[in-house]
Amino acid sequence: MKLSEYIAKIKPLDADAMQAARLRQDTLTKPIGSLGRLEELSIQTAGITGQAIPRLRDKCVLVMAGDHGVVAEGVSAYPQEVTPQMVLNFLRGGAAINVLARHVGARVVVVDMGVAVDLPDHPGLLKRKVAYGTRNIARGAAMSREQAIQALESGIEVVEMQIAQGMDLLATGDMGIGNTTPSAAIAAALSGASAADIAGRGTGVDDAGLQRKIAVIERALAINRPDPKDGIDVLAKVGGFEIGGLAGAILAAAAHRRPVVVDGFISTAAAMIAVSLAPQTRHYLIAAHTSMERGHHKMMEWLGVSPLLDLKMRLGEGTGAALAMSLVEAACKTLAEMATFGEAGVSEKSAA
Amino acid sequence: MKLSEYIAKIKPLDADAMQAARLRQDTLTKPIGSLGRLEELSIQTAGITGQAIPRLRDKCVLVMAGDHGVVAEGVSAYPQEVTPQMVLNFLRGGAAINVLARHVGARVVVVDMGVAVDLPDHPGLLKRKVAYGTRNIARGAAMSREQAIQALESGIEVVEMQIAQGMDLLATGDMGIGNTTPSAAIAAALSGASAADIAGRGTGVDDAGLQRKIAVIERALAINRPDPKDGIDVLAKVGGFEIGGLAGAILAAAAHRRPVVVDGFISTAAAMIAVSLAPQTRHYLIAAHTSMERGHHKMMEWLGVSPLLDLKMRLGEGTGAALAMSLVEAACKTLAEMATFGEAGVSEKSAA
Repeated sequence: MKLSEYIAKIKPLDADAMQAARLRQDTLTKPIGSLGRLEELSIQTAGITGQAIPRLRDKCVLVMAGDHGVVAEGVSAYPQEVTPQMVLNFLRGGAAINVLARHVGARVVVVDMGVAVDLPDHPGLLKRKVAYGTRNIARGAAMSREQAIQALESGIEVVEMQIAQGMDLLATGDMGIGNTTPSAAIAAALSGASAADIAGRGTGVDDAGLQRKIAVIERALAINRPDPKDGIDVLAKVGGFEIGGLAGAILAAAAHRRPVVVDGFISTAAAMIAVSLAPQTRHYLIAAHTSMERGHHKMMEWLGVSPLLDLKMRLGEGTGAALAMSLVEAACKTLAEMATFGEAGVSEKSAA
Repeated sequence: MKLSEYIAKIKPLDADAMQAARLRQDTLTKPIGSLGRLEELSIQTAGITGQAIPRLRDKCVLVMAGDHGVVAEGVSAYPQEVTPQMVLNFLRGGAAINVLARHVGARVVVVDMGVAVDLPDHPGLLKRKVAYGTRNIARGAAMSREQAIQALESGIEVVEMQIAQGMDLLATGDMGIGNTTPSAAIAAALSGASAADIAGRGTGVDDAGLQRKIAVIERALAINRPDPKDGIDVLAKVGGFEIGGLAGAILAAAAHRRPVVVDGFISTAAAMIAVSLAPQTRHYLIAAHTSMERGHHKMMEWLGVSPLLDLKMRLGEGTGAALAMSLVEAACKTLAEMATFGEAGVSEKSAA
């Protein structure tokens, strides 16, 4: 299916299912509202899925990897070779996302969207390489418009596969040395915030590294002039292949009425691309956590979402999203499994 | 074992195990510190357990129930009969804590510490009733000093049982209509804060109810004059049986070097009693979440702990603690299961 058809498929939340979920929450054996954000999550998930009592069984963390020509500007604390090394670590099950996904009962799907080297064949690796890394955004566009569309459509296709396998809940994750730089550029381009307000230390650059990174983002925006009214243009000019893939994945999940737990800084930039293309997508997003990356809260404000967790994490890979998935599942379980006042023979609130 | 022997058994954290855990965290395939509070939790748990790589297998949520004579003053939105009704709901598995404990793989142990009516025999219910509810703290002491010690020792004994069954991680929970009032009185007595700074709406009293509750707490403190240097006196004068039981449980867990995930407002008041009796206990505590109850943050400051979650929950029962248990377990799994840079052949950080 074409990108434009996908965008047309994304509809508002199901108000009837939300109302039914809200009414049921108010009959469960607890003071009304006392489960706080768990209640909100269960109602949002009802609206997303169209089910008054949604059940989330199959949970999938999609980790998309890509490389970035902008590393030539010295914007990252780690060498580019770490991208494929970490992909292999994901495939062997030794990375943080593997541990946390196992902990919450989610499966991990790893996709090569544009790693700069060839990766070996592996049953756990989907190869959707658009190119061997993006070009350097400090000197020109990251990719062609056609490549941006290819990245988005590959993300859609990968999520179609997961839905065919029964996926109920998607979490996004990323791996790509240097990818906080294009993510910050996307956020600045779409939100209008300055590079200095958005950019952070990524995996750990020092003060000089951070200043260099801000200057690189400013240069990338000045040279490329991405059009904030055109998400595909922003992705092509200053984005990345894994970011495009994640944006497509988010659109596909929304089109199929599946909730999307958005990880940290890079995933949030991808969500901004998705929402710029299809504004209704916003309602399908669940913000996992506050990243330590400087501008993350501004990006979440732009999306109109509020993060569930604040654990001072800044790892990416979908690690925050994996933990948040478990909260979404917990929320739906309270709605489904708690006894009502009537069933349990518990007295309701009296006049205080 | 006597209470005083228990208190003497509680030792500082194991600095060697903490150092070993810290060093290992820094060799794992992620930027140093990028798992944020998960890294801190794993190091704290190493210090608590004395194991460089702690594994948490058996998780137990202890839900202690008791009634409160102070409900005669109209401090709660719910009638007192809800306490035993909810205990039965716990035993049938229909309450929020049952759903959330199942979700995180924890078992629930329910204890009658002082419910105002007799409860039926049930294999899931431990009967340690000190009395049929406390006396009204607005008119005198909640209980005798002997009863306070009995509540503490019953909590110790219940945790001894759980440790014999293999418990690695304890979470605290409570049920008791009216119990935010004694909890607030304990917090005010020990911290020196005013009743108005601590008291909140509990399960949902209105403005007039909140003013009445503050006045009741002020009266309870003025009439009883609890000695802030003597935790047993504070418990006896303005406490509750389930609060005393939880304080004893916390002491026992610390004495046996087991981490304790402290739930919300009532559990935090119990933790304050435990820490006032044995200051080292503080290091064994993990604050689960920020309760919506007004003074909770002041109580956590007094304890020197910082909550993991802020999900706008205000239910009690151990619901916040159950969710936080899963984060503690996740933290320990990252320490145990992630590959090191050497094992995974991943390059370390370069000069940025």
